Amino acid sequence: MNKDNNNEASKPKLTPVSALGEFGLIGHLTNRHVLQHPESVKGIGDDAAVLQPTVGKQTLISTDMLVEGIHFDLMYTPLKHLGYKSVVVNLSDIYAMNGIPKQITVSIALSSRFTVEALEELYDGIYTACRLYDIDLIGGDTTSSNKGLIISITAIGEADADKVVYRNTAKVGDHLFVTGDLGGAYLGLQLLEREKSLYLDNPNTKPEIAQHEYPVQRQLRPEARKDIIEILADKQIVPTAMIDVSDGLSSELLHICKQSQVGCQIYEENLPIHPKTFALSQEFKLAPTTCALNGGEDYELLFSVSPSDYRKLEGIHGIASIGKVVAAEAGTKLYVSGGKSYDLVAQGWQHL
Amino acid sequence: MNKDNNNEASKPKLTPVSALGEFGLIGHLTNRHVLQHPESVKGIGDDAAVLQPTVGKQTLISTDMLVEGIHFDLMYTPLKHLGYKSVVVNLSDIYAMNGIPKQITVSIALSSRFTVEALEELYDGIYTACRLYDIDLIGGDTTSSNKGLIISITAIGEADADKVVYRNTAKVGDHLFVTGDLGGAYLGLQLLEREKSLYLDNPNTKPEIAQHEYPVQRQLRPEARKDIIEILADKQIVPTAMIDVSDGLSSELLHICKQSQVGCQIYEENLPIHPKTFALSQEFKLAPTTCALNGGEDYELLFSVSPSDYRKLEGIHGIASIGKVVAAEAGTKLYVSGGKSYDLVAQGWQHL
Repeated sequence: MNKDNNNEASKPKLTPVSALGEFGLIGHLTNRHVLQHPESVKGIGDDAAVLQPTVGKQTLISTDMLVEGIHFDLMYTPLKHLGYKSVVVNLSDIYAMNGIPKQITVSIALSSRFTVEALEELYDGIYTACRLYDIDLIGGDTTSSNKGLIISITAIGEADADKVVYRNTAKVGDHLFVTGDLGGAYLGLQLLEREKSLYLDNPNTKPEIAQHEYPVQRQLRPEARKDIIEILADKQIVPTAMIDVSDGLSSELLHICKQSQVGCQIYEENLPIHPKTFALSQEFKLAPTTCALNGGEDYELLFSVSPSDYRKLEGIHGIASIGKVVAAEAGTKLYVSGGKSYDLVAQGWQHL
Repeated sequence: MNKDNNNEASKPKLTPVSALGEFGLIGHLTNRHVLQHPESVKGIGDDAAVLQPTVGKQTLISTDMLVEGIHFDLMYTPLKHLGYKSVVVNLSDIYAMNGIPKQITVSIALSSRFTVEALEELYDGIYTACRLYDIDLIGGDTTSSNKGLIISITAIGEADADKVVYRNTAKVGDHLFVTGDLGGAYLGLQLLEREKSLYLDNPNTKPEIAQHEYPVQRQLRPEARKDIIEILADKQIVPTAMIDVSDGLSSELLHICKQSQVGCQIYEENLPIHPKTFALSQEFKLAPTTCALNGGEDYELLFSVSPSDYRKLEGIHGIASIGKVVAAEAGTKLYVSGGKSYDLVAQGWQHL
């Protein structure tokens, strides 16, 4: 036992949530937040939030639920990172429609083991994401659970009606692009799970995480690709179809192809894999291509553009041309070196 | 044991949720639903739902999370009623802003003990509420939980910008009204809890619920007051303040008074209590006034109107004039027969 733990004075003060009650807790957690957008007319504090939609824009709504023990493990997930990631994964869905998220609501159910200080840490992450992505927190609900922490976030955004991008509008001949790099979040998770097992077997084990900071960060603190939406707008490109990579590239390609009634040809050599991700895949004796195709939670954007827009994207750092949209009859295929091809298979996250 | 239970052929088919997987399950549960509103451009099936806001209207957003064992007990709550109530409590928040709800998103986390058939029953209730209140189900999330069922619903509505009604705008001299009757849902819950205890003590006990259908229905299958919003519009009344009665009348009055920086005088003799609620309060030896003031989940509307609108509401069935808005210095008081008065106290639902 650490000596400091014997010193009462050095212990942080821990406040049970029951000391504040529901209304007190919401007030305590949200009183720092000032609404930034003129579209956010009324935030927390009434029966509903009130928004003023921008004339000519459509409203985008996306929602996600994260459950402790299913989507996250608090043994290796700092609460601040969890709060940040919970927001980011929802914003990613709005960007994937070519929209700009403006507001979120945050609902939380928590068991009595959580203290006010733990919730403050979670909200620190939520507010950090709100600040960096320019988001107003406009509402939510806070309640008890019998077990664990559950976070349900709804993101609200806007886009010009003629610039909303769906999954079902890819056309034969379009080029397929993916942003950033793939497989890192999946390998980061494998590493965290391995270190957890080793620690549980022997609590004196020192976690070997420092040299794998990149994939670990991809897992614990992902970013949503706001920058890409800005680049596309700047270059006056409206993708023909778009989706965010939450369940793995294969799964997302199959969504676009099925809904657009097309096929695709993807080139293995074009899949963007970070050197640190590649190195960790070797350590785990996993094929890096498999991690890139089927690992989830990268929160990159996969999109198609018409041939006339192809040149506009050449040479932009962090956007990889991975293949083409073809006729449905040609299937959904991965081409590897030597010309051999394999059917893409969805092996994304199945929580059920 | 019932004889029929020995007959394998008569047993309903039960399908584990894992047989469908997440995407299969969402498709299975939502494929019957057709979008009704022209404002609902895109529902389930993309990264986000897309709405076309009506020009001149503001958007209202409200969200609630319901947790098994905290907000509902499946021992006496039919899943169909639970689905219905989960929707209604969210719609109630939109009506409480003087708005019209148009869409909902539904996120569900569930443990492996739930079957596809159980979820179908839950969604039957959700769709019944959608049909009766003219709501489009436009999105959501379905995932696993380690324990129990969690339902998170977000309701989206619209209102003319100059007709949105807040909690903080009641004025001294305004009249206070409440719709329907109060305390029924609370007493219904007491009855269901009592019958559950008796059943657990002795499974041969016959539940005595039939003669108390009214309060039980108030608890299990409440309605939101869409009709009242229509009456107010018809009579060209915009309340000065409004809130829905989810945590008990006292608690809601205190919200309006605190946020509007006013006081109130409420008359006990004017509190609307249904005869069946009154009878059940006697059986439980509870003061009916206490049940009306502090019992929650009635989902009625509490609102204030300016003196010039007072006469327009006279004689309308189901809207009770319960008191007046006074200066903050006069406090928040309940007057009982004989002229004695008591301070109103918030004893609403505290789940934390």
